[in-house]
Amino acid sequence: MTKSAAILVIGDEILSGRTQDTNTNYIARQLAALGIDLKECRVVGDDQAEIAAALNALRAHYDFVFTTGGIGPTHDDITADAVAAAFGVGIGYHPEAYALLEARYGTDKFNDARKRMARVPHGGTLIPNAVSAAPGFRVENVFVMAGVPMVMRAMMEEIVKTLPRGIPVTGQTISVRRPEGDIAAGLEAVQKDFPDIAIGSYPFHDDQGFGTQLVARGRDADEVERGAQAIEAMLRALGAPFQRV
Amino acid sequence: MTKSAAILVIGDEILSGRTQDTNTNYIARQLAALGIDLKECRVVGDDQAEIAAALNALRAHYDFVFTTGGIGPTHDDITADAVAAAFGVGIGYHPEAYALLEARYGTDKFNDARKRMARVPHGGTLIPNAVSAAPGFRVENVFVMAGVPMVMRAMMEEIVKTLPRGIPVTGQTISVRRPEGDIAAGLEAVQKDFPDIAIGSYPFHDDQGFGTQLVARGRDADEVERGAQAIEAMLRALGAPFQRV
Repeated sequence: MTKSAAILVIGDEILSGRTQDTNTNYIARQLAALGIDLKECRVVGDDQAEIAAALNALRAHYDFVFTTGGIGPTHDDITADAVAAAFGVGIGYHPEAYALLEARYGTDKFNDARKRMARVPHGGTLIPNAVSAAPGFRVENVFVMAGVPMVMRAMMEEIVKTLPRGIPVTGQTISVRRPEGDIAAGLEAVQKDFPDIAIGSYPFHDDQGFGTQLVARGRDADEVERGAQAIEAMLRALGAPFQRV
Repeated sequence: MTKSAAILVIGDEILSGRTQDTNTNYIARQLAALGIDLKECRVVGDDQAEIAAALNALRAHYDFVFTTGGIGPTHDDITADAVAAAFGVGIGYHPEAYALLEARYGTDKFNDARKRMARVPHGGTLIPNAVSAAPGFRVENVFVMAGVPMVMRAMMEEIVKTLPRGIPVTGQTISVRRPEGDIAAGLEAVQKDFPDIAIGSYPFHDDQGFGTQLVARGRDADEVERGAQAIEAMLRALGAPFQRV
């Protein structure tokens, strides 16, 4: 049974346009490689009620939820409290997190702000952070990660080790120098002939003009290949030059 | 009264990790310039029920909703139908859209697939597309745009002309070569002194190592400037070199 997942990106800086989110795409690719279906993403600001509401909606709906952002030492880092509120549990210093942060900073630099990074909702387990020590954490099916991409990626590498493997979706992509409208009817016919794969059509433009990428995706690699060949046969019949990419 | 907004990105290609979404950031910046508060973003796949459910949640909650993706001529373009379903209205060829697409393609190339791009939920009005003719559309507080960034931007330029102007949030950014944990206590004190602005803290790393960007944001530019100066005074007292960026 294929597992489902959602991503919750937390941070005013995404909503204000200050920061281009790239974490979603990274996590999406990691999940795709594991054969876990990413079904939904949300972005909310630094607001406890909004974070908790989004988290409760997503964790009830999907097998796994991955959050990024808001677990640093400053006053605007409120994700841990929001997660505790969402689960209706208390929050406090996690002994292991406290010990490793204390070891990292030394007693004199381990101030109250840095101690905030040891606060974990009750019942949470730690996600190691090979980059900057301060751990993420997991509560039930929710994985809470940093927002800084380098740190998030280090945490995701640890999480990936613990996730179940499914059958990854494989894809075949065919690029054709024709507008979508020329090939839409033929493509729909192929989709009807291959109902167990998903065929997507993505227009693009580059320095040579407009074109379309046709993508066949599915968990049965042989069926995907048969679908891709059917798309190529359709393009050949139209006299449209194409290539696998 | 400040208007609120949400973005709904539609497309399997975002969830699969095939495509890095950049439309959200572009729309976020446009809304910020208008003084409209972007409060939430969601990404869903090419599934009519999921699109309609997300759209109904967002349009009930925010003043404006902007969607991207799924309005092309191929079978996987189902956004128009999903919007009609969400509003509980019918859908059909919009005479004006039909006429301009027919003029664009000429009678012989205006096939059934391209006619799909003239389908608009009943009551919808068109959003011009200066790039590739096929229009977006508006239904009540929902603006439906293409997913191809160049086309989406052309549509957003038209939409912006019709949106109400609010007071934009202004920001001042101070960059300091100190880790967040060193300045968190001082920063929180400044935040408490300036409750009407939002102070954010964003760690970064570059070839010179780690640092933090401190951002004061608010609609009262004078208060933002006073907050920024208070942050600078705090950093000066810590002996931490900083600069406005």
